[in-house]
Order: sequence, then structure tokens, then C-alpha cells
Amino acid sequence: MLDTSSPQVRAVLPLLYVAWADGVLTPSEAETIRTQIRAQDWIDTSTREAICNHLDPQTPPTATQYFRWVRALKEGAKETSVTTRCSLAELGAAVATVGGDGAALSDASRRALADIEAALGIDGEELVGDLLGERPEPTPPTSEAPFEVSTLTEVLDGEHADLRDHIRTLLQDPVFRYRPELDTAAYREQVLRWCEHLAEQGLGALAYPEDYGGDGDMGRFIATFETLAYHDLSMVVKFGVQFGLFGGSIHRLGTERHHEKYLESAGTLELPGCFAMTERNHGSNVRELETTARYDPATEEFVINTPHDGAHKEWIGNAAVHGRVATVFAQLHTDGEDHGVHAFVVPIRTEDGTPRPRVRIEDCGEKMGLNGVDNGRLWFDQVRIPRENLLDRYASVAPDGTYDSPIPSPGKRFFTMLSTLIGGRISVARAGLSAAKSGLTIAVRYGNRRRQFGPKDEPEVPLLDYRTHKRRLLPKLATTYALHFALDDLTRRFAAKGRDASLDAIEAEANALKAYATWHTTDTLQEAREACGGQGYRADTRIGRLKADTDVFTTFEGDNTVLMLQVAKGLLSDFRREFRDMNLLGMARFVATEMATQVAELNPVVTRKTDADHLRSLDFQQGAFRYRAEQMLQNVGQRLKRRIDDDMDPFEAFVDVQDHLVDLAHAEAERVILDRFVAAIEAIDDPTIRESLTALRQLFALARVEADLDWFLEAGYVTSAKAKAVRGGVNALCDELRPQAEALVDAFGIPDACLAAPIATQDRVEAA
Amino acid sequence: MLDTSSPQVRAVLPLLYVAWADGVLTPSEAETIRTQIRAQDWIDTSTREAICNHLDPQTPPTATQYFRWVRALKEGAKETSVTTRCSLAELGAAVATVGGDGAALSDASRRALADIEAALGIDGEELVGDLLGERPEPTPPTSEAPFEVSTLTEVLDGEHADLRDHIRTLLQDPVFRYRPELDTAAYREQVLRWCEHLAEQGLGALAYPEDYGGDGDMGRFIATFETLAYHDLSMVVKFGVQFGLFGGSIHRLGTERHHEKYLESAGTLELPGCFAMTERNHGSNVRELETTARYDPATEEFVINTPHDGAHKEWIGNAAVHGRVATVFAQLHTDGEDHGVHAFVVPIRTEDGTPRPRVRIEDCGEKMGLNGVDNGRLWFDQVRIPRENLLDRYASVAPDGTYDSPIPSPGKRFFTMLSTLIGGRISVARAGLSAAKSGLTIAVRYGNRRRQFGPKDEPEVPLLDYRTHKRRLLPKLATTYALHFALDDLTRRFAAKGRDASLDAIEAEANALKAYATWHTTDTLQEAREACGGQGYRADTRIGRLKADTDVFTTFEGDNTVLMLQVAKGLLSDFRREFRDMNLLGMARFVATEMATQVAELNPVVTRKTDADHLRSLDFQQGAFRYRAEQMLQNVGQRLKRRIDDDMDPFEAFVDVQDHLVDLAHAEAERVILDRFVAAIEAIDDPTIRESLTALRQLFALARVEADLDWFLEAGYVTSAKAKAVRGGVNALCDELRPQAEALVDAFGIPDACLAAPIATQDRVEAA
Repeated sequence: MLDTSSPQVRAVLPLLYVAWADGVLTPSEAETIRTQIRAQDWIDTSTREAICNHLDPQTPPTATQYFRWVRALKEGAKETSVTTRCSLAELGAAVATVGGDGAALSDASRRALADIEAALGIDGEELVGDLLGERPEPTPPTSEAPFEVSTLTEVLDGEHADLRDHIRTLLQDPVFRYRPELDTAAYREQVLRWCEHLAEQGLGALAYPEDYGGDGDMGRFIATFETLAYHDLSMVVKFGVQFGLFGGSIHRLGTERHHEKYLESAGTLELPGCFAMTERNHGSNVRELETTARYDPATEEFVINTPHDGAHKEWIGNAAVHGRVATVFAQLHTDGEDHGVHAFVVPIRTEDGTPRPRVRIEDCGEKMGLNGVDNGRLWFDQVRIPRENLLDRYASVAPDGTYDSPIPSPGKRFFTMLSTLIGGRISVARAGLSAAKSGLTIAVRYGNRRRQFGPKDEPEVPLLDYRTHKRRLLPKLATTYALHFALDDLTRRFAAKGRDASLDAIEAEANALKAYATWHTTDTLQEAREACGGQGYRADTRIGRLKADTDVFTTFEGDNTVLMLQVAKGLLSDFRREFRDMNLLGMARFVATEMATQVAELNPVVTRKTDADHLRSLDFQQGAFRYRAEQMLQNVGQRLKRRIDDDMDPFEAFVDVQDHLVDLAHAEAERVILDRFVAAIEAIDDPTIRESLTALRQLFALARVEADLDWFLEAGYVTSAKAKAVRGGVNALCDELRPQAEALVDAFGIPDACLAAPIATQDRVEAA
Repeated sequence: MLDTSSPQVRAVLPLLYVAWADGVLTPSEAETIRTQIRAQDWIDTSTREAICNHLDPQTPPTATQYFRWVRALKEGAKETSVTTRCSLAELGAAVATVGGDGAALSDASRRALADIEAALGIDGEELVGDLLGERPEPTPPTSEAPFEVSTLTEVLDGEHADLRDHIRTLLQDPVFRYRPELDTAAYREQVLRWCEHLAEQGLGALAYPEDYGGDGDMGRFIATFETLAYHDLSMVVKFGVQFGLFGGSIHRLGTERHHEKYLESAGTLELPGCFAMTERNHGSNVRELETTARYDPATEEFVINTPHDGAHKEWIGNAAVHGRVATVFAQLHTDGEDHGVHAFVVPIRTEDGTPRPRVRIEDCGEKMGLNGVDNGRLWFDQVRIPRENLLDRYASVAPDGTYDSPIPSPGKRFFTMLSTLIGGRISVARAGLSAAKSGLTIAVRYGNRRRQFGPKDEPEVPLLDYRTHKRRLLPKLATTYALHFALDDLTRRFAAKGRDASLDAIEAEANALKAYATWHTTDTLQEAREACGGQGYRADTRIGRLKADTDVFTTFEGDNTVLMLQVAKGLLSDFRREFRDMNLLGMARFVATEMATQVAELNPVVTRKTDADHLRSLDFQQGAFRYRAEQMLQNVGQRLKRRIDDDMDPFEAFVDVQDHLVDLAHAEAERVILDRFVAAIEAIDDPTIRESLTALRQLFALARVEADLDWFLEAGYVTSAKAKAVRGGVNALCDELRPQAEALVDAFGIPDACLAAPIATQDRVEAA
């Protein structure tokens, strides 16, 4: 048994400690120590042998012996001035002086110990840290925002700040308390009550004309929808179905008499209604839906019919329980001719709630989420409605059955009717983004408080200090800000259009941003859940509910992939037109632009530039996004042309390049988002806000370049060295933004009541 | 009004049609037609003027007029032999011959029409297709598998095929019918009943020694777990908690007396138990958990105590309702010393289910998923247990309080105890993969049946024929197969180890595959949900449930990011050791290997090779994965060294390179998965199975190279041309595998009863 009070033994104790600590030394290295110990003539021979005995792999120390060595080192260290950053040799020399007879080691002995340690080539400091480190208590987290949070909230709230604040106050009213204990039937009733409360506040009719309780402002309606989306998403979706889709279809597809008859009661929710477009067999392909509306001149009625079982209306919100009428989309037949899809007002339930004759209604039942919305299926068996129930803004049928429309082409007519969906698409994108903001608020607050692991002699480290955790959340926060401003700008332009203005210019952007934003929401909530670990899995932390409720946002109001393909096709037809339009000036301008871009961007000096200022510059970031979108467009145009030239069927040719089309649409979406974000920042006066938003813009763009580095490398737009610098640049921006992360989520201004009983609140109390 | 019975009018009708079809011609192009029509002297002057009137943007046709033109063209075409692939001029010439006086056009007139069409530069064929195409009925989908599905199932089932078939049969028994209507309390009871049924079949005790009802075979236990995971995942997790974690901790950490006392009743579920390791404040950092077990020699008892509120046991399965005892992990204090984390058996409830004195139990409440598992929180207030309740395989305390252990180093002791978690980690990875298989089965069957859009004159196209849809599902299917074989191999090696064998070699692989597989599950189920559109959102299609239940798989049994960081650190310590080990031979061998790789891989001829055979070859694929893992290891080693050399604190240095560490672990995981998949395929006799699995291996590897193309480009491992070829190669492999996609999911052999009432079944009936 070693005498741990002997200074000679104490001097070599650190070596004994590492010899038996797991994973530090190999058996041959322990053997090395043994050989060296035998050569130390400042140690008594018997002591030397006793020490060497304890270095023999055949005779390991007992746990109790090992524990005594560790205790002797720890207690000895406390009585000396050694720090946790000393070497093993220094520690040995120090503890040799305390306890026992306490004689100091000679310089030669110290050098000998240091030589043994050096020969092992191990990091002695780290091992001493492991041994001696003790964790002090953490100090509460601080938030270092270089700006006023309330000022940033004002910037985000924009022109409808008062309305948003009103809604925030409203949502804190006890009537809006979450009721997770309710079963599905009761939950649906609760959601109806909530929507009625909102209607009482005049929020449902906001977008309708003044005569019907509104102020005709789509911008205010969408701001309402977005802010409500901090609360229960079933409520928001039901709100959108009733006031946006049902009421909106009456408003936008109907004429005066329909407004007169339905709009006020739609806005007050006295008349709950449905928007019955989607069919089971035709989700995305609306143009080929199969429900028919045959005109019967004998009775001046339309006959609405579901021709076979798979042609029923599917997923119709408000249909399972509450809806009394529905805007039904059907193929209009008159005079033996099919004039394509039109919208009709069809009563589906009597006032007492029973389904009307010849209308079959089925409950869609439980869903992954949004169970407060009563989705249903509708079948019509030769249901007769008056001729006046055709929503006839874009097409009318005379009493004798003569069809007329101000738009001669059925294609254009169809797409004009469909463009009434744009408002809903923008609203869904913004509501999804609100959910992403909720998820980020919860996850950032948690990451700023939750500690796990850390250096040996310091408090455990908040999760958000870890590189992996910053990378999880901060680029998503930056994208969320970028999307906020892009969607805000789009909403403003959309709201400024009169009811009769063409929406062509806005539609492609709405499609691109809807798809981009809702995919971003899905990704962000997944990261937020994982970033909160097990706590994120609790139902009452809301992330699970947000995930489940928003999961279908990527599907409804236009399947994201289908929307992205439309965006790309839109770009291609512009492109095709540019080439087809054979006037020389246009062609010259087009080619000149292209060549100028190529020359500017592929300048070998620029593709090699790696300094941070360059990588963060508008010049580089906007240049990169524009170049990518333009190159992808040309590239996919050429791919298509080759296939068409090879006599491939055009449909097949498009299918064959779909992966490139979706990439193009993504690139276009990011180009637009960045441009809008840049413009929004330029319009801000407060320099502290500009500075933080600029850092977010830089992180958004650089992280997206990083995500698509394969493309930029392949295109020769960046070199390997620059690619490396881009990755480093993302890290640096994450580091810079990390101290203000919590202020940046606080600025969303999500009411605590909406975040329910989140982990963040609980930990905030604990940390304070 | 135009006379559409006039042959001259009929000849130009196709031009009138395109002039007013939306988005085809610009106003100036319509003007071009007008000018040209005026020059056609084969048309009567008055007819020419009438036609030109209808080309004036100021006087568009009415919808009825336009509709008549379209009808005249459609009906005219039916009476001729024109196809949907003719030009506008050909269509005009053809319909001019029918109806009216039916005179044929002169050759000159035909040429004139063709000239006008050519001058417009439009794709007349496509436009004719739009006009005349009519959709025939689709034919039911077929599955073209070049192999016998049942043979592939046998290959997948491997050595435990009988056991798996037995479980498949069992799961179809009516007692296992899903009960989605149950509330949480009843659901928990149902899950307990299900686990009791499984215990009655002897499945719970499989891994225990024969004396306690098992056959000591972890391989059979894990195969059971994996197959059960086709069914309700709450059942699987409860099964794992009871028989794997609780019973397994008794088996692996305890000694004979504990086996004698607890193991049989654990295996029969007579004694429901918990595994209480995780604490609220210490999830991942188990070593610093705060529950204490102080030994009191006066009474020969341990005193289990929760020192403060945040130190309670959190998320403990079986704790909220059913558990009667718990394996509790606590810091063992004896003789005034802390010996680190040890496991103790602590009774928590009496036989009648009431909590024991000084044990506080709280229900964790509703979660995102897995609500059939009764997770709870546990607080201990100086709870006294007999000395014998220490699970003392790795450490014992004598009656007088003397501590002893066969493992002297506390670090090694701790990690040895923790290595008992490896079985659970492998099980979770495999259960997650089963859920991914369920999701893919549903989504592939749906994609093979659900049709949407299509060429104008053909049936709508199954979703799985779309490039975007194939890319969504088929690479995920390939990865699922790859992971299946990798996990199977890992399980086999794990099961072959005796209870006392070192698991070091297996642990890193288990960590890497657990993280990789569960992230893959999350991604795959998200894609499957979106790929099924709205139908995927229905609760009864199971994807939502699978998503919600497996979401926490990335967090429990080791947080994925933490596991990946451990994997990378393990690789680095091997690396460090290789450099530290100063014998020349080792060093030389190391450097030589590296140089050889570099020379072989960065051969400029190879980095430029783009032919399909090369891209699909083992040579390229395994070479790429090995090169990446080795380079990343060196790269991160150098980064760390630079930081340490610059005197950065080692903890901070590791944090600073975490992004590279996680990338390295990913690369290592993929290298291992590919190598295991390749070895598994080599062992298969049936050439048809080998061929299909080889294509899956090729797709898995090439799609992963594609996903990491930025790295390969940056490293100069592939050129831009090769990167392009990789993308094309992924498309080609997706195309090749698409016809057998359904057979490949059928081979998983998931019982229909487990897929519940999925969309797939419904559509299968419809399509048949």
C-alpha cells in the first residue's frame, strides 16, 4: 500500500492518477512511466518499487486506493496556490509540500517530473482541469441588445401597429385562454365562439366594403390574421375559412346582389359558410374537378351534382358541423356545353343545422392537427339552386341559358377566378411565419437559460453558446426576419390593388413566398423542437401543437411543389417571350444584361475575394442571388429546348427538368426576399435597428449562399477558398448576433398568454 | 359575326383561337396576324375584314363567340384524321374541309397558313394538344419487380425470420386493434395490456438468462422490438422501458441476488418498473446529475434524496401510473466521499399503486406523441433503501461503508455503466427505421395510385412518375435499405458480445447510427406526409401519429447532436493517439495510408470521370466516402491543434469547431453504412435481389454524394462536370428504381393491420 503522506509519493501521484484514468494512457505508456520512475534516484528505492507496483497492468489499484489518491491530490491542491491550469508535474511538486513532512522538491526532481510528463506527450493542463475543476453557480442570462426592443417591434408592426396591439390585448383576455382539455367536439365549439368574439370586434369584415361592416382594406385583414396566428391556429384557420375564403369568394366573385344578400352576415358569422373547391380526386388540378352545375332553363335553376364518389368535395372547413351555405366550384354546363369551373352559392344546412335534402355531409374526423376546425366532405345529388346563385362577376347565364363573360378565353377566365385565392395564400404564409416566430421565441429563450456541460471550472454553458445550437437557430431567425419584410411588402402591394386590378404581377411572388415561408416554418419548428430537447416534446410548451397545426400549411392553399413549379414556368414564359420578341433592341438589351452580369460576377478577382466586408456586402450578396436566378433560368431554358428539339413531348420535358424548375423557383424566391429585406432596411431611420437588421440580412444571405454552395462552386461563382470563407462568415455572424438573440425574439411581441405555459417562462423565473 | 361554316374562316380559326387564348400571343403578335390575313388573297375581302375585326384588341370576341370557335375546331377535328400533334396550319386546313361546303384548301393557302404560324414562332403542336386533348381513363398501376417480394422479405428478416413472422401474426390479432378513440388514461391502460400480452408470449424476457424466462439473446429481443415498431409506438416504447431499460438495468448492472429477486417478475410484467436516470437539470450531462445516495452504516441503508426542485427525475416512463420500483441513478456518497453515479433499486409504489412515503410522483401530462406511455417525474425526500439495493456489478459498499469496485477509475466505471444503454440506443434506431418504413410504404403506394395532371390527351399521371416525387421518396427508400443492413450488422455484433465483453468498439457505431437513423426517420416521415398531400394529414392514415411519436427519438436515448459530437471526439482521440504513438512504423504506416489515398483519389483523370458505370462503382462510392471521412478528420484535427496552439481553452476549442465535428460524424456514419450495405449485398445469393439492392446501394451513395456536393467540390474531389453527372446519375437511378418502388416497400412485410386504414388501402381498392 502506498503511503500517500510521503512527499515523494505525492509528487508522482498525478502520474499515477493519469495512468489509471480511463482513455489517457496506453499500457505501453504506463510502462514508460514505470521505466522512468525506476530511474529517479531522488525517490527511495522501496518507494520506487511500491510506486512501480501500482503501475503494473496486472495489479490495478482498488477503487478505494484510486479514490484516496484523487482525494489526496484534491485536498493537497486546495492548500497550495496551484490553479486548474497547471501541469501534472507542477501539481505533483505542489502537493508534495503539504501534508506529511512537507519538504519542498528539489529543482532537479521537478525537472525530472516535467520530463516524464513531456515524454508522454499528453495535455497535462487539461487532465489537471478534469481533476480539480469545480463548477461555480451560473449567473442569470443577460440580453445585450444594442437597440430598444419596443422600437424594433414598432418597425415590425409597421402601418398596422395599432390594430396589432389591439389584437395582442384581445388575445390576453381570459375568453381566449387555451383549453387543451377539450375533446374534439367541444374544441370545435370553442373555436367557433372565439371566431364570434373576433367578429364582434369587427375583425371578420375588415376587408369588405364599408356598407357591409368593413373598410375594404385587405392589408388590415391580413395584419389581423397574422397577429391572431400567435394564438390557436385552429381559430386562425376557421377565421380564414369564414371571412377570407367564404366571405372573400362572395365579395370577389359575386356582384352587388350577392354582397347585399350574404356579405354582412358572413362578416358577423351569423351565416357560417364554406369554400368548397377541392375534390378528393382533384386537389391541385382544380381545372379538372368533376362536380357539375347544369343549367335548366325550364326552372331557371342550376343543378349541382357529384358525378361519382371520388368527386366529392374534400377537406372543406366549416362543413362538418357549422356551415350553412357553401361557395361550390363546379363545371358550368348550359345549352349542352361545358364552360369550365365557376362558383355557386349552395345552401347545405337549414338554420337548425340539419343537412339539406340531397346534400350528404361527412365529417373528415381527426387530423394531425387543427382539430378545432370542422373539416368535412360534401356530396351533391342533383341539388337545385336558383340561377342567381351563380357568382357572376366573371360570367353570367341568361334566363334562356345563354352564357356570357367579359373574358373570352376560358383559360384566362379560370385563372382570374383563381387569383381570388392570392389573399389566402399570402395570409397562410404570414400565419405560418407567426408560428415560426412563436417556436423561435420559445427555443431562443430556452437556449439562453438551459445549461448543459461546460469547462471543468466554470458554470455549465447555456445551450445557445454552443456553435451547433447557434447554427440551428440563428440563421432561421435571420430568414424569419427577411421573410417578414418580404411578406409585408407583398401584402402592401396586394392591398393597394383595387378589386378589379390585375394581380398577375403579384401572383408569382405570392406563390413563391407562400411555398418558401411555409417550408421555412416546418423546418424552423422542427429545429425549435429538437433545440428544446425533451422539454420541447411537452404538449404545454406549444411547439408540438404548432408543428402539428402548421404541417398542412405546405399543402393547403396550393401544394408547395406545385406552386414552385408554377413560379418557374412563369419565369420561363417571360424568358421565352424575351427571345421570341424579335425586335433587335430588346434582344440586344437582354444579351447585354446577361453578358454584363457574367463579366462582372465571374471576374476572377471577385470569385476569390474572401474578406468579411466583401462577403457581407450587398454587392456580393444581391449579386450572387441575381446571378444564380438568371443562370438557373438560362440553364433550365436550354435543357427544355434540347428536349423539345429532340421531339420529347412538352409535358414529359417539363417533368424531366422538374428538379431544376424547383431549384430555380427557390433561387427566385430568395432573390426577391433579399431585395425586399434590403429595401425595408434602407427605409429605417433608427441606426441601432438598421445595424441589427443589417447583420440579420447578412446572415440570411450568407447562410443561404452556404446552403447552396454546391451550386455556386459548380458554377465557378466561388472558389474553394471563398466557400470556406462563407462558412466562416456564417459562424462569425452567428457569434455577433448571439448576444441579441433574445431581444430579437422579444421584438416579435408575442403575448405571454399565447405562449401558454412554455418552458421559457418557467426557466425565466428560475433564472431570475 | 363570323360565319364559322365558311371554309376560309375555318382555315384561320386556329389562329383566332390562339390570338385570344390567354398568354399565347402579345397584342403586337395579334397585330402581325392581322397584317398577314389582309395579304391573303385566297380569302374574300369581306371575310378578311370580318376576321381582322376579330383580331382587334379593342373588340374582343364575346365568350359565346369564342366558345363557338373552339367547338367548331373540336368538332371539325373529330371528322378528320388530324391528331393532337398537328400544327395550327394543318388543323385549319383539315377543319376547312368539313362542314359548310367542304372544299379543300389549295396548296398555296396551306403554305400561307404555315408561314403565318412560323412567323409567330409559337409551338403550334402544343397549342393543338391543349385544344383537342381529351383524357382517357387510367389503367390500374402495375408493379414491375424483377425479384420475388417474399424472397426479399426473407433477406431483410435475416436470422430471426421466424420470430418476426410470429410477431407479424400476433399484431394482426384483434386484441392489438388500434383504439384511437381512447383518452389518455384509457390509452395508457391499453398499452399496458398490450405489453402484458407480449410478456405472456415470452417476448419481454427474451434477453434475460434462461433461468428467468429468456434465452439470453439480445438479437432476438431487438428483432422483436423492431418488428413491434410497425404497430403502436407507445406500446413499443413502454415495452422498451419495462423489459429493456428497467429489466435490462437489473440484468446488466445487478448481480445474482438482484436477478433472483427482480428479473422474472420484470419479464412477466408482474413488477412494472422504471429507469430513472434523466433529471430536469441534467438531461445529457448524466455525470453531473444531482440526486444523492448517502450510505448510512448505522442502519446499513442508502438514503436517496433529491437535493432541490430542479434535480427531480424527469420523463421517467412507467412512473406516472404503473411503475412500482425504479432503477434510480444517484451520486453515491459513503464515508463522506462522492464516488460518482451508481444505480439503486428504489420502491416507489405499494402493490395497490399508491406512492410510497417520501416519494413524490407527478404526471408529465400530455406530450406531442407517445401518450400511451405514462411518463412521470420523481422526487425523493430522504428515502431509505437497504444496502443490497445498490446494483453492485461494478461497485459495492461493505456494511461498514467501505467502497470497492473492480474498475478503479471513476470515469471508466461511469462509462462502463452507461454502456448498458447501447442496447436501447440500437433498439431506438431500429424502431425509428420501422416507422420510416411504414411512412414510405404508405407514401409509395399512394404515389403509385394518386394521379394529378398529365399530358392533354393521356390519363392523369401517377404522382410517382414526377421527377420531384421520385426524388422525394426514392433516395429515402434507398437510405432506409442501407440503414436496415447497417443496423442489422451492428445488432448481430452487439448480440454476439457476452455480458462482460467490452462494448467500446460498438458504442461509437451505435451512437452514430442512432443519430443518423432517427434524423432520417424524422426527414422521411416529413416527406411522406407532404407526398401524401392532404390525405397524409388525416389522423387515420397514421403518418401524423408516426411523426408525432418518433419526433422525440432524436432526443431520447442520447440527444443526436451530443451523440454525433461524441462520435467525432472518439475519432479524434484515435487520431491523436496515432500521432502520439512515437514509434516510427506506426507513424509511417499512417502517413503512407494518407498519401496513398490522396494520390489515388485526387488523380485528375478520376476527378473528371463522369460515366455512369464509374459513378455507380464501389470504387468511386466507397472511395469518396472514405476520402471524405479521412479528410474531415485531418481537417478538424488541424483546426483543433491551431486553436490549442493559440492557447484557446480546450473546451472552447471544441465548441468552436462543433460544426466540423458534426459533419465529420455524419461522414463517418455514411462511410460505415455504405460499407455494411456493400458487405450485406455481397453475401446474398439470389441474383435478382442482388441486382435491386445494388441499385439501391448506388442510389443511396450517389444521393449522399449529391447532398454533400459542396464539400466534394470544395475539396477538389469532383469537378463541376462531375457534379453535374452526379445529379444526373441520381435522376437515372430514381427512374430505374421507380417501377419496383412498390415491391420494395411491400418487401418490408408490414402487416395491413398495422397500417390501419391508410389511404393506400383505400386507393388500392379503387384502382383495382
